[in-house]
Amino acid sequence: MSRAIQPTRRKLSFPVVTITTDFGELDHYVAAMKIVLLQHCPTARLIDVTHFTPPQDVLRGSITLERAIAAAAPGTIHLAVVDPGVGSERKLIVAEIDGQFVVGPDNGLVTWAWRMHGGGRAFEITWRPKEAASNVFHGRDIFAPVAGMLASGKPLKALARPLKGDPILLDLAPVSKGKTKGKVIFIDHFGNATTNLPCALVPKDRIICVHVKNRLIGPLRKCYSDVIHGEPLVLIGSSDLLEIAIRDGSAAKLLHINVGDEVEIV
Amino acid sequence: MSRAIQPTRRKLSFPVVTITTDFGELDHYVAAMKIVLLQHCPTARLIDVTHFTPPQDVLRGSITLERAIAAAAPGTIHLAVVDPGVGSERKLIVAEIDGQFVVGPDNGLVTWAWRMHGGGRAFEITWRPKEAASNVFHGRDIFAPVAGMLASGKPLKALARPLKGDPILLDLAPVSKGKTKGKVIFIDHFGNATTNLPCALVPKDRIICVHVKNRLIGPLRKCYSDVIHGEPLVLIGSSDLLEIAIRDGSAAKLLHINVGDEVEIV
Amino acid sequence: MSRAIQPTRRKLSFPVVTITTDFGELDHYVAAMKIVLLQHCPTARLIDVTHFTPPQDVLRGSITLERAIAAAAPGTIHLAVVDPGVGSERKLIVAEIDGQFVVGPDNGLVTWAWRMHGGGRAFEITWRPKEAASNVFHGRDIFAPVAGMLASGKPLKALARPLKGDPILLDLAPVSKGKTKGKVIFIDHFGNATTNLPCALVPKDRIICVHVKNRLIGPLRKCYSDVIHGEPLVLIGSSDLLEIAIRDGSAAKLLHINVGDEVEIV
Repeated sequence: MSRAIQPTRRKLSFPVVTITTDFGELDHYVAAMKIVLLQHCPTARLIDVTHFTPPQDVLRGSITLERAIAAAAPGTIHLAVVDPGVGSERKLIVAEIDGQFVVGPDNGLVTWAWRMHGGGRAFEITWRPKEAASNVFHGRDIFAPVAGMLASGKPLKALARPLKGDPILLDLAPVSKGKTKGKVIFIDHFGNATTNLPCALVPKDRIICVHVKNRLIGPLRKCYSDVIHGEPLVLIGSSDLLEIAIRDGSAAKLLHINVGDEVEIV
Repeated sequence: MSRAIQPTRRKLSFPVVTITTDFGELDHYVAAMKIVLLQHCPTARLIDVTHFTPPQDVLRGSITLERAIAAAAPGTIHLAVVDPGVGSERKLIVAEIDGQFVVGPDNGLVTWAWRMHGGGRAFEITWRPKEAASNVFHGRDIFAPVAGMLASGKPLKALARPLKGDPILLDLAPVSKGKTKGKVIFIDHFGNATTNLPCALVPKDRIICVHVKNRLIGPLRKCYSDVIHGEPLVLIGSSDLLEIAIRDGSAAKLLHINVGDEVEIV
Repeated sequence: MSRAIQPTRRKLSFPVVTITTDFGELDHYVAAMKIVLLQHCPTARLIDVTHFTPPQDVLRGSITLERAIAAAAPGTIHLAVVDPGVGSERKLIVAEIDGQFVVGPDNGLVTWAWRMHGGGRAFEITWRPKEAASNVFHGRDIFAPVAGMLASGKPLKALARPLKGDPILLDLAPVSKGKTKGKVIFIDHFGNATTNLPCALVPKDRIICVHVKNRLIGPLRKCYSDVIHGEPLVLIGSSDLLEIAIRDGSAAKLLHINVGDEVEIV
């Protein structure tokens, strides 16, 4: 296991570590994790993905995390802590997906990445700090040190052992070929609504619309400027998933779209 | 062109790249740009200016961007993406202002910097990624790589060609000498209202007040503590522009000041 | 003084500098400070603690700052700017606490760290910029350069002189041994309410509850999952202080708890 992994990471002198949490930015929580992580790897390049995952919303965190993985290169480490079960019996894991490493709780947070990237390998973290870890902040006391040690080139096998079976996976998956019905899985900052309909479902030779909230939106557009100000449109988002938007406005607000709403390619 | 630029940038081993967007911090968008940028320049020092520009508010983004330029040194690179026209025919540019480089869409985002720093030189980005760029996320697919390549010392002429004419400029300019009427251009986090009246307009030998919202505020103060708690005041802000504030409070809220409101030196 | 300090800091090639402000993230203020700081120390590792301290809330900033200090190692520098008195006669200081250095205004911002870590040594900043500093932004013009120079290894004695007496300290302290009554000092992003009751006050051999808002919450739990969804609990937070929480919810909202509310160990 570690033989395949080490060469890539050892070459990085400025290893990239992304951070995804539901900690907000009001408190010191994110800083505490970063301080600890840099103690283990002073040259790590820390990139905040988001700390505004709604509290305890593992599903949402899972989608944001996948987008960071999709943008990153092999060897990248992702510290992902949306962890309502902290201190309970839930496991602490490292998931290897596409040669990248997610460090976080085993509560479904890797679901979207696991499903979009064809699975991976999961490991249970066996490393524990010398002093007792806080029961309420494994992010600082276990996950951040492990991410830092991985970033500094420490072999995964010194920190974790293979997990029996898959990590916990939530009820969330991209719609598979041949099907046309999906749902809204994500509302972004702009109010754009991302669906779980991959662009591969769109037939190349036919014009499609999307049915959502008793409304037909289409045909498929290339960019926001293809419609006039305030008009709704459907396009292929930067995640290669079908996305419902409003030019210069919020589709979520103006079309009353919520996560979970059904959508269908027509 | 590149001869004048290269020496400065080549000397920097930790080149500073600032980032100004309207992406918010809820999603992975900013992280995706940073991950890509660091792939081109692993030692770049990334500084977030803001991601809370109101969506599609190019004018506001323009003012924030100028403040980053005012604080930075020659050779600094500014990735600036408030880009409602992404994927349309709008151009992608690099603007050189005071020896610094702004990478972003040609939609007026450089206006305030261009006007406050006496113009500059503009270039149209000719570089395109090998794989097709997303139609909705040039920030990740074009602007971030170009900013990263510039930061790593790649010559500008390998990425862009001189733009014919000036970049697009919005209707926003500092009030010129001899005039006394301006407007509120910016409300900050504290509710302080910045005007487009440069401090150079203030006569050295006379006491001035500022007229705003049918109210006379003055005389000019040096700092917030020069008035008592809750009192309005006018002072020279950190941008060297006249600013209307309330000690320990929000001038915007308490005086009902909005962007665009007329102000006059009296 | 500087002899004891220098060796530690000189060894760090990537010195950690944390930043705590009430500047928000809407404007360029934080970026301006970072740009200036990196000019003095290009390899500094900048860690945002928070910029969402409520405007002018020195007490709250004081608690967040202490949490950063608690997480960090000797030699760490903390740039802390919640500074409603900027430009007035208030002093500018460096406080050395546990071998770490806080750079900021002398207005009580170091209170919680000073009290939790057994005091320290305080110095008045004598360094001033060659060009006149803005009267409203010492963060950019004085504190950031001083923090950057300290990070780069410049001796403290070249920048500051010993302060006569202690820095200004607010009316905020941990409850001392033998007492049982305290108050809520901090509501975090999740709505958890931290008290000033250190866990050392909890008798090892007895079951305790906490009385707050006419409600008895207990017994003391280890982690959020020890109670069912929606139930209130009391536990030892990651700050080693007693904390009132609700599993998967906001104690502040659901129990109507505010900063200042009385709490008692029963």
